[in-house]
Amino acid sequence: MNRVLFPGRFQPFHNGHLSVVKRLLEGFDEVVIAIGSAQEGFTCRNPFTAGERLEMIARTLKEEALFEKAWLIPVPDINMPMAWTTYALSLVPRVSSIASGNPHVLELFKWTGFKTIRVELVEPDKYSGAYIRQLILEGNEYWRKLVPNAISRYIDEVNGAERIREVCRNEHSRN
Amino acid sequence: MNRVLFPGRFQPFHNGHLSVVKRLLEGFDEVVIAIGSAQEGFTCRNPFTAGERLEMIARTLKEEALFEKAWLIPVPDINMPMAWTTYALSLVPRVSSIASGNPHVLELFKWTGFKTIRVELVEPDKYSGAYIRQLILEGNEYWRKLVPNAISRYIDEVNGAERIREVCRNEHSRN
Amino acid sequence: MNRVLFPGRFQPFHNGHLSVVKRLLEGFDEVVIAIGSAQEGFTCRNPFTAGERLEMIARTLKEEALFEKAWLIPVPDINMPMAWTTYALSLVPRVSSIASGNPHVLELFKWTGFKTIRVELVEPDKYSGAYIRQLILEGNEYWRKLVPNAISRYIDEVNGAERIREVCRNEHSRN
Amino acid sequence: MNRVLFPGRFQPFHNGHLSVVKRLLEGFDEVVIAIGSAQEGFTCRNPFTAGERLEMIARTLKEEALFEKAWLIPVPDINMPMAWTTYALSLVPRVSSIASGNPHVLELFKWTGFKTIRVELVEPDKYSGAYIRQLILEGNEYWRKLVPNAISRYIDEVNGAERIREVCRNEHSRN
Amino acid sequence: MNRVLFPGRFQPFHNGHLSVVKRLLEGFDEVVIAIGSAQEGFTCRNPFTAGERLEMIARTLKEEALFEKAWLIPVPDINMPMAWTTYALSLVPRVSSIASGNPHVLELFKWTGFKTIRVELVEPDKYSGAYIRQLILEGNEYWRKLVPNAISRYIDEVNGAERIREVCRNEHSRN
Amino acid sequence: MNRVLFPGRFQPFHNGHLSVVKRLLEGFDEVVIAIGSAQEGFTCRNPFTAGERLEMIARTLKEEALFEKAWLIPVPDINMPMAWTTYALSLVPRVSSIASGNPHVLELFKWTGFKTIRVELVEPDKYSGAYIRQLILEGNEYWRKLVPNAISRYIDEVNGAERIREVCRNEHSRN
Repeated sequence: MNRVLFPGRFQPFHNGHLSVVKRLLEGFDEVVIAIGSAQEGFTCRNPFTAGERLEMIARTLKEEALFEKAWLIPVPDINMPMAWTTYALSLVPRVSSIASGNPHVLELFKWTGFKTIRVELVEPDKYSGAYIRQLILEGNEYWRKLVPNAISRYIDEVNGAERIREVCRNEHSRN
Repeated sequence: MNRVLFPGRFQPFHNGHLSVVKRLLEGFDEVVIAIGSAQEGFTCRNPFTAGERLEMIARTLKEEALFEKAWLIPVPDINMPMAWTTYALSLVPRVSSIASGNPHVLELFKWTGFKTIRVELVEPDKYSGAYIRQLILEGNEYWRKLVPNAISRYIDEVNGAERIREVCRNEHSRN
Repeated sequence: MNRVLFPGRFQPFHNGHLSVVKRLLEGFDEVVIAIGSAQEGFTCRNPFTAGERLEMIARTLKEEALFEKAWLIPVPDINMPMAWTTYALSLVPRVSSIASGNPHVLELFKWTGFKTIRVELVEPDKYSGAYIRQLILEGNEYWRKLVPNAISRYIDEVNGAERIREVCRNEHSRN
Repeated sequence: MNRVLFPGRFQPFHNGHLSVVKRLLEGFDEVVIAIGSAQEGFTCRNPFTAGERLEMIARTLKEEALFEKAWLIPVPDINMPMAWTTYALSLVPRVSSIASGNPHVLELFKWTGFKTIRVELVEPDKYSGAYIRQLILEGNEYWRKLVPNAISRYIDEVNGAERIREVCRNEHSRN
Repeated sequence: MNRVLFPGRFQPFHNGHLSVVKRLLEGFDEVVIAIGSAQEGFTCRNPFTAGERLEMIARTLKEEALFEKAWLIPVPDINMPMAWTTYALSLVPRVSSIASGNPHVLELFKWTGFKTIRVELVEPDKYSGAYIRQLILEGNEYWRKLVPNAISRYIDEVNGAERIREVCRNEHSRN
Repeated sequence: MNRVLFPGRFQPFHNGHLSVVKRLLEGFDEVVIAIGSAQEGFTCRNPFTAGERLEMIARTLKEEALFEKAWLIPVPDINMPMAWTTYALSLVPRVSSIASGNPHVLELFKWTGFKTIRVELVEPDKYSGAYIRQLILEGNEYWRKLVPNAISRYIDEVNGAERIREVCRNEHSRN
């Protein structure tokens, strides 16, 4: 069983992520999606809990008939970058490589001695969690074009747009 | 005994906070003031230790004859927002509701299933810890109008203005 | 979707656990298996990593044709019992109840206001992780009768018996 | 204002603790009671949350007319003994001395350079949290003689005896 | 043995740091260099691990014939400023004073009751870790003039310039 | 430069440890002594702070003319065994192997993919920190035969025997 680890925050999971998962499954039997900053939720940068992200990614992968080949694992932050690599690896089924578009993550795993794959992101300014959250915050419905349908529906179910507006409100207020 | 929790950083406690405490005591027997980020102190954003904040709020409430109806409890950060709710609740006497002007805090407690009260802040740009610390930093004595007298005197006692100038000095220096 | 949370350490997952999962699936659509003390591994009390436990439980549930109805989620310890409840809940898909045979866990979730189900354990002295690890340590093959076949095979694959003998060796040595 | 710090776990607060508080108030204006292991609760060794301990100690001190001279502050564990001293001191109003019957605590504060007072405990085998919890566990009502009335009543109110029996049940079970 | 503590992040160690070490050794027998934020590495602000910083400072001090009089000790962050003082002191050989150019550090140690020395930094805008990292990022070789030769060579050995460009790449990208 | 990592708690460093260091230096240029559980001190199991252990090991190695070939690095516990390996490796100069007599440590590093060396301990029941602390506690001077002279003298200097008696006193008392 040849598996690859694909870590990310997935706030939210978007078409860019889905495209990476599909490409990785061309070369690997299974992909292990590590949902990072898992302890976060209800903040402007991390509006969705790990449980919610897990549910919405699962629905997406089921609609894409990819769920059989995926593992979804929440991985909390430990704020020790050098230790995070083996921490994450201990929480997931055994993988042979780590795939990421984030140079910091790639360098860390290389330092630890693991095999890494640099993922080419498609239109990274557009398919980006930060950009999608910004669109939602501004009430611009274009964000729905950038995420799988299952994600868009799930965010509606949990009133995600309203939540983002709420928790981003006091982000810039003084306190 | 009907109690309400009122969490905040109180850097420092100001007239806006005092006004909230008074309003809450119209509807509740007791108010539990949770002094958040309790592990902080001697930084530009959190110049006062929890012990100091506790002392200066206690003096204020004694002068206002409200001390009998208040609990002052330091609550350290745990950097896990979803866990922080039950953590804070376990450190304080039993409360029936949570009052806050911070949407992030309100959303968290709602998610956990607790009763929340959205507090209306009076002139939040003026009665604001960040603004008061900025005035102190600039040597503008107007800050004294924004806080109870007991707070102003306590900050003088611990040379708070000088401390704020010191610890904010290197905030923007390169390192 | 009516889900129940079933937390445990699963060192290793045994027939008692499997029986609980089956009973819970009579009343719920899905069961969320929270693999506790997820940060542990390679110790006498926690010989298997969360990733390994996850893999061996997944194989078992696939053989039992229950995998479609289960979620497997690692949950690290945070050493703050009152905060652990909402921490665990934030890492998993939304559940309506918590099932456990551990009174400490049940009391914690009750305190937090959640619905709990006390699970009756079948022959708890026999179907017990500690007993199984003890049998393995003593080289008594009877342990294989107490766990699903997939677990027994997986432990062989990772040389689990040898590992347990190794990591338990220095448990009682002086240092 | 001359204050002394008196740290303890207070599981539960008993007549020995009360006697120490009274003696300390002969030499100091105020006593600061630091409720240690504040993050604990609903375990066999720490059955009561910090909030509960705080409430029951407050009631006791009110009945003894000592509440005006006491501060009750929860202090969570940080598992770094050398750092705990200044951590605890930062959470409480300024004190001039630390009083304890625990040699570990006294040695730590001495190492840090603080003034310490070794407290003589009266009949420490009898006035002991562990002994009192053991009596409760065994259903021996003698424990009520060892604690102030307010403590005994509070423990009844929260069904403390039943809770202790529950959470101590699985303490020795295998898992 | 009269020792002084000199804490810093040393990302990287530069001529300003070396000059401070030399001046301190005029008044003290030994200097204890505490390498702060020791858990960090491979980030834009903290590109080098504690082990790497330790190695490159050791080489520098050997070339300067100062190694005999220096201790190099990694000190991880604990995110509790008031507790950090005694934490750091417990990890190092006994010192009589703390030297720093950082007012926050000085104020913390003063609060704890320790003797502090305010270090005058020479041209702090130039001899600054942030400025040196910025120069490296821009490919400006002038940074080599600001650090000891041993540091410059070590950074080349570990491909430090390339690493800094890599890990700073995604610093400002959206995610 | 070929280095080996030798982790331990060294409570205290004894002749068995010294013998291992000597043997390792036959095959390696340098040995990196990682002082584990570095955050501990003033407890019955960990009576000496990391700073004290560092000082006494340094004196020993200087007397043995081995100090030039040794690095002494405190490594705090992080209570995540799988993450501890890369954490420790990030705090020390680059090593090629890990040497230990502790099977748990060896298994962890093997899991991470590092080269390990199983160290044969000479008379491990006698040359053992726990045994030495027990002798000190009982006032049996035989412990001095089991440690290098520099260790024995250092422990006297800091009144270590008295400290051990103090901090072990309440170990078994009820609380």
